[in-house]
Amino acid sequence: MSPPLSNLDRLECPTCHKTYEPTAPRNVCDCGRPLFARYDLTGVTRASLLPRRDLWRYLPVLPVSSEDHALTLGEGGTPLLQCPAIERTYGVSRVFVKDESANPTGTFKARGMAVAVSRAKELGLRRLAVPSAGNAGSALAAYAAKTGIEALVVAPKDTPLSILQETVLFGARLFLVDGTIAQAGDIVKAVCKDTDFFNVATMYEPYRVEGKKTMGYELFEQLGGLPDWVVFPTGGGTGVVGLWKAFQEMRELGWVDKAMPRIAFVQAAGCAPIVKAFKDGKEASDPWKNPATIAPGLRVPKALGDSLVLKAARESRGTGVAVEDDAMRAAVSEFARLEGIGACYEGGATLAALHQLVQGGSVKRDETVVLFNTGTPLKNPRPAVGMKVATVESSAELEEHLKG
Amino acid sequence: MSPPLSNLDRLECPTCHKTYEPTAPRNVCDCGRPLFARYDLTGVTRASLLPRRDLWRYLPVLPVSSEDHALTLGEGGTPLLQCPAIERTYGVSRVFVKDESANPTGTFKARGMAVAVSRAKELGLRRLAVPSAGNAGSALAAYAAKTGIEALVVAPKDTPLSILQETVLFGARLFLVDGTIAQAGDIVKAVCKDTDFFNVATMYEPYRVEGKKTMGYELFEQLGGLPDWVVFPTGGGTGVVGLWKAFQEMRELGWVDKAMPRIAFVQAAGCAPIVKAFKDGKEASDPWKNPATIAPGLRVPKALGDSLVLKAARESRGTGVAVEDDAMRAAVSEFARLEGIGACYEGGATLAALHQLVQGGSVKRDETVVLFNTGTPLKNPRPAVGMKVATVESSAELEEHLKG
Repeated sequence: MSPPLSNLDRLECPTCHKTYEPTAPRNVCDCGRPLFARYDLTGVTRASLLPRRDLWRYLPVLPVSSEDHALTLGEGGTPLLQCPAIERTYGVSRVFVKDESANPTGTFKARGMAVAVSRAKELGLRRLAVPSAGNAGSALAAYAAKTGIEALVVAPKDTPLSILQETVLFGARLFLVDGTIAQAGDIVKAVCKDTDFFNVATMYEPYRVEGKKTMGYELFEQLGGLPDWVVFPTGGGTGVVGLWKAFQEMRELGWVDKAMPRIAFVQAAGCAPIVKAFKDGKEASDPWKNPATIAPGLRVPKALGDSLVLKAARESRGTGVAVEDDAMRAAVSEFARLEGIGACYEGGATLAALHQLVQGGSVKRDETVVLFNTGTPLKNPRPAVGMKVATVESSAELEEHLKG
Repeated sequence: MSPPLSNLDRLECPTCHKTYEPTAPRNVCDCGRPLFARYDLTGVTRASLLPRRDLWRYLPVLPVSSEDHALTLGEGGTPLLQCPAIERTYGVSRVFVKDESANPTGTFKARGMAVAVSRAKELGLRRLAVPSAGNAGSALAAYAAKTGIEALVVAPKDTPLSILQETVLFGARLFLVDGTIAQAGDIVKAVCKDTDFFNVATMYEPYRVEGKKTMGYELFEQLGGLPDWVVFPTGGGTGVVGLWKAFQEMRELGWVDKAMPRIAFVQAAGCAPIVKAFKDGKEASDPWKNPATIAPGLRVPKALGDSLVLKAARESRGTGVAVEDDAMRAAVSEFARLEGIGACYEGGATLAALHQLVQGGSVKRDETVVLFNTGTPLKNPRPAVGMKVATVESSAELEEHLKG
């Protein structure tokens, strides 16, 4: 057995500050809001990080007690790619992409589920359920399969087929609803009340965000410091909340002392409840009516963690940006043709947002910006619209095409 | 500028042993067979490897002169995953999967193209062409986009749509042929004769195999030594040839002294020319008539490097295994449900082969076996055959399903 390494101390509500013992499974605070894992950071140093390539390198600041309980499919340790052609095109000194498509199941959702499922298993849970606009469900399915526990996924019926196929491949029980992740969430909540399924919905349990926060630690190590801006696509908000939590922990650890990165969270113009709340100066969002966007991960009409996203953006002197579907499509193409990077629509949204941030003067020319590509383009719905490919019978015919 | 680090010395035909200066672009040997890159290994030590996560860690044994010329999208550094449930099921002590789906564009083809395109760019080439059963084309497209050079891809018209979409996304010129990769290869060869496109077909230029060989170096470092068996799906053969070349170089470097791993190369029962040649005791394969398999990467009726694959299998006291499409499908499901690993059909073929190797007594119970999952399941054609998913309107309805 590996020695215990986690420094998990308590669960705490970052809003009302009530605390709980972390030794039993728990969803939200008594006040109904998300809980954070808190650690005793006194003994944590950079030397205490583990010599691993995956996110379990950060076990001293994760809630799982030892490597023996750490499920791994190779999550984390994703590349940070400098983008010289985008730098030239946008006139910004340093632009990087943190490419999360390298994760198991092809998206950053693997980070959250690796940690949440590991912790759930350690706490004795045997059945986990999640409402998902897509990728959280297939990530849960993969980690549940790895450790031999049961996974139940409820998703909107218009979730991309590739994601549904993947969820079924990993052996999860999958059900569809005629609605958004909001309706799926209501059903999962009710089922978890009536059965022994435990709900691992976004921000509705405290450990997925811990997995997501490892993106912030990796970024710090890969960049040798923190950037001026991070730009992150935001549906349920765990990505932004996780990054902000990582930045704050690293400050508490004394690893960073300069200004914290400014966080730009990005939503789809057709579903931008948190951007609207940001611009209206509100502390929480109102449910978005008739949410519609090509990016399934951004079709979240009301996020449980909305106030935490708003807090992260405001405290970091950041902002919220809404981008049109057409701009996401164009940005996915631009990522591919300028940098050879395959992006999901949600990832494309960050490049579309960069365009707005540079145009509006928020991002300065001498700044360092990190865009997060949260997943693979291979799950993008309808990518081939308008694609025409010629069939040729000879090299002569092909050479004619090349001349034309 | 980074200091030159490569120890590339010459190109050499491993069959007729003729050598060439490596300073000009070159396809095959005057004898028509593939060329290998050869290095001056005298100064290479484990300490001279670079502190990088990607395959450029192995720059001292790669043909690119310095880090400045190394194109990266984050290729290599893929996870090696132990598979306890497969070990129990198959009764083998140690089974690992080297999961190549974490590469850019989701397959191991990225390794070969990262190195070949970097070297081509360094040698001044501006237009590259490839015949591809799928993933080599999209990988070439991505790296060509990254460095701003032109890519031409010719593929069979029944290549999975997801791969064609990806190739177009990265801005390559894509043409289809009514045939297999063999017809595509003939057309590309003729076009490259008539134009300034340079042909980077499998084994038809010497540097893709150099990228592939980094899998062998990584395996050695991750495992702390070499396994008893490696099991690799084989269409064109660069994977097997690259691994075998890496093992031989590491022996020459003095890093390994015990017996070399036995290599089991795996083909589809519907297209198994090299397996047939192996069983028939021949030194080369005959073109396979009417090749048919669900795994696009295995639909290669005649490989230019067939004799090198046969040599690797024989010298390593390995073998060749042919597996049915149904066995691949079942193995993809088994990988997913037992281990949470998402595999392409070609990767599934290695697990189907393990079944045969254990049943036939080739792999012993106390041995260490490494299976190579060469790509993501997200490009698998027709994965959803038979998939049924219920739509529910309430938690009560879902709970009824769960009881049933």
